[in-house]
Amino acid sequence: MKIVSVTRRERFSASHRLFNPNWDDEKNEEIFGKCSNKNWHGHNYILYITVSGVVVNETGYVIDLKKLSDIIKEKVINKLDHANLNLEVDFMKDTITSAENIAIKIFQELDNDIKNLGCKLQKVKLEETENNYVEYYGQ
Amino acid sequence: MKIVSVTRRERFSASHRLFNPNWDDEKNEEIFGKCSNKNWHGHNYILYITVSGVVVNETGYVIDLKKLSDIIKEKVINKLDHANLNLEVDFMKDTITSAENIAIKIFQELDNDIKNLGCKLQKVKLEETENNYVEYYGQ
Amino acid sequence: MKIVSVTRRERFSASHRLFNPNWDDEKNEEIFGKCSNKNWHGHNYILYITVSGVVVNETGYVIDLKKLSDIIKEKVINKLDHANLNLEVDFMKDTITSAENIAIKIFQELDNDIKNLGCKLQKVKLEETENNYVEYYGQ
Amino acid sequence: MKIVSVTRRERFSASHRLFNPNWDDEKNEEIFGKCSNKNWHGHNYILYITVSGVVVNETGYVIDLKKLSDIIKEKVINKLDHANLNLEVDFMKDTITSAENIAIKIFQELDNDIKNLGCKLQKVKLEETENNYVEYYGQ
Amino acid sequence: MKIVSVTRRERFSASHRLFNPNWDDEKNEEIFGKCSNKNWHGHNYILYITVSGVVVNETGYVIDLKKLSDIIKEKVINKLDHANLNLEVDFMKDTITSAENIAIKIFQELDNDIKNLGCKLQKVKLEETENNYVEYYGQ
Amino acid sequence: MKIVSVTRRERFSASHRLFNPNWDDEKNEEIFGKCSNKNWHGHNYILYITVSGVVVNETGYVIDLKKLSDIIKEKVINKLDHANLNLEVDFMKDTITSAENIAIKIFQELDNDIKNLGCKLQKVKLEETENNYVEYYGQ
Repeated sequence: MKIVSVTRRERFSASHRLFNPNWDDEKNEEIFGKCSNKNWHGHNYILYITVSGVVVNETGYVIDLKKLSDIIKEKVINKLDHANLNLEVDFMKDTITSAENIAIKIFQELDNDIKNLGCKLQKVKLEETENNYVEYYGQ
Repeated sequence: MKIVSVTRRERFSASHRLFNPNWDDEKNEEIFGKCSNKNWHGHNYILYITVSGVVVNETGYVIDLKKLSDIIKEKVINKLDHANLNLEVDFMKDTITSAENIAIKIFQELDNDIKNLGCKLQKVKLEETENNYVEYYGQ
Repeated sequence: MKIVSVTRRERFSASHRLFNPNWDDEKNEEIFGKCSNKNWHGHNYILYITVSGVVVNETGYVIDLKKLSDIIKEKVINKLDHANLNLEVDFMKDTITSAENIAIKIFQELDNDIKNLGCKLQKVKLEETENNYVEYYGQ
Repeated sequence: MKIVSVTRRERFSASHRLFNPNWDDEKNEEIFGKCSNKNWHGHNYILYITVSGVVVNETGYVIDLKKLSDIIKEKVINKLDHANLNLEVDFMKDTITSAENIAIKIFQELDNDIKNLGCKLQKVKLEETENNYVEYYGQ
Repeated sequence: MKIVSVTRRERFSASHRLFNPNWDDEKNEEIFGKCSNKNWHGHNYILYITVSGVVVNETGYVIDLKKLSDIIKEKVINKLDHANLNLEVDFMKDTITSAENIAIKIFQELDNDIKNLGCKLQKVKLEETENNYVEYYGQ
Repeated sequence: MKIVSVTRRERFSASHRLFNPNWDDEKNEEIFGKCSNKNWHGHNYILYITVSGVVVNETGYVIDLKKLSDIIKEKVINKLDHANLNLEVDFMKDTITSAENIAIKIFQELDNDIKNLGCKLQKVKLEETENNYVEYYGQ
């Protein structure tokens, strides 16, 4: 029995702003700078979902990538792509839309469905720009 | 006397929506689909500015890349980065913020300054996603 | 009236071999080396389709990228992806499956449909590996 | 004594199909879809071999990358490149040629030689397309 | 309380040679080959600094990326960029300038400052070419 | 008869400095900044050689890429890789080692040999960093 990790890359383009509603505009500007622009800015986010599990003898697969991709699209991409992360995404409600928080929330959205396919969600990696990315391992 | 093209890559992250004010929401939705989302979406745009000119004997340069980069930043990037392309950019006023139009407007913003440095602005290339880019040659 | 070029990237994974039926195996091996392996090899091909045209005032578009992508998929990708380029692709019949020839044939498959959308097919670029690509301009 | 991981990237282009000989064609088609095409398809695989070990004082090296690359080429790349993974590769015999299984087998091919150089084979990462990769840590 | 890893990418272009002063030129040539060229060679190094920590409720941040980037630039990039790694970098003195050693030294330069920001320096990854990179985890 | 362009990518890692011997150190520093560092710096240069020609019926090739790659390696890469561009490269003698000049000289080194293979050297593209590249078309 061999354990292998499988990673699927997906992408979404979204608008957002960093904003703490408990702070006034000046404080938001001070802490978040131009990322707090009230007219929003946006990114091409790149998402890497890593799941691990036993390689199934009959298929050579850990997971059917088509099924994994379908879950990611249904639960995450369809909600985030061409959307406003602050205003339109149910699972981001009342959450500052930092890359860290987006990654945590995506992990929580996917965790159960991946368990139901007999695998473990190992990591959510989210690239916000070519110079910045975050990784969340579920802890 | 040798002619060489020099290209400088710059990047900006912005929000926008495709929207024709002469159409109602339904028509905008029909033509632009999710790109017309009224709550905006966004991209990490990648911009390639190509200038051509004679290689100067004393420097081996067509253009001082530091000066080229400074002009691009002052005239373009500082206005577009972390901004809303529909609401906040003077040179995009009353213009649909398609990649095509952004590229044309960037060309017009830079053309004169690059002439003043003794070079020719050859091309503006703008990547909106890894699957789509546009090129404008000034015609 | 401004002319802009728009490029759409698509991908396909295929098997093939380089083989001239007028030559014996030895000669094929001599000219094509391991690319002539009778058990096939394969690539992740990356295809860039560049069309040019006038930017339409009402949309800011040269072409609706969704329509362009649909044409490329219907006429090209659906036939080439996960296929054997020598055995299964109608428009490659009796043609050596070099990158050069694939690019030429793709150009011919797409040319008319893109004209019918009011644009000009400018270039087909085909990447076979990260170190090799070809470009065909229709001449 | 410092422990550092060193990764060498190599590439190979190969044909394959996913096929379980215990299933009829219909079942293979149902499970593997177009990846089961009997005329094969192919990929540009990208392979990352990660080894770890103590940094040697006299060289500043964990491992001589030339030697590592030579081993990978001799044991793996020369067998896989421009080959049919199902028909022509000794160490893939009687194995479904999923990315998971290829990575496991590559790990087993390299493990001893890397031990003999005083290092530990930490990970085999295999990219099948830009959207999919697998990682095997030897467990 | 959630733990997330945040990675910042930075780049520097430098010259160096691999050279052990306890060996004569012949031995250096034998062990390091062309990497020992006495007239130097150089690289565009790509540096990935990964820090981990608790996501702060008020900001959604593990760390302010601007502050992280400033530290990396002050302590590392400003010293390494457009410099000779053997001759001009204080923290590389008397150290063979292998990628392994550069990564270890960069880790040591950054470790304290990152602790002072309440985070843990998890990993330094250094890419020397597109085919080679090293990773150091502080052990 | 179809004309296709074929591009081969090659890479080299080299050290250099920008320096005009007719100027004193102060003037060199003023014009070239840190690129004039007397202890050298370096880059991973990426070279794209584009040749065009008629697709040969019997092979489907414009040019045998193995032959093209061999010429590039013999005439250019072997001289530039792991070398000092100012001190060690015959064809860069008495030339400021700007990317512009390197591209021109590479063009001149390759032009004849490519003509002898029945093709036309169309373009030399040289990437110095991910943000800067130059293109020379032989004029």
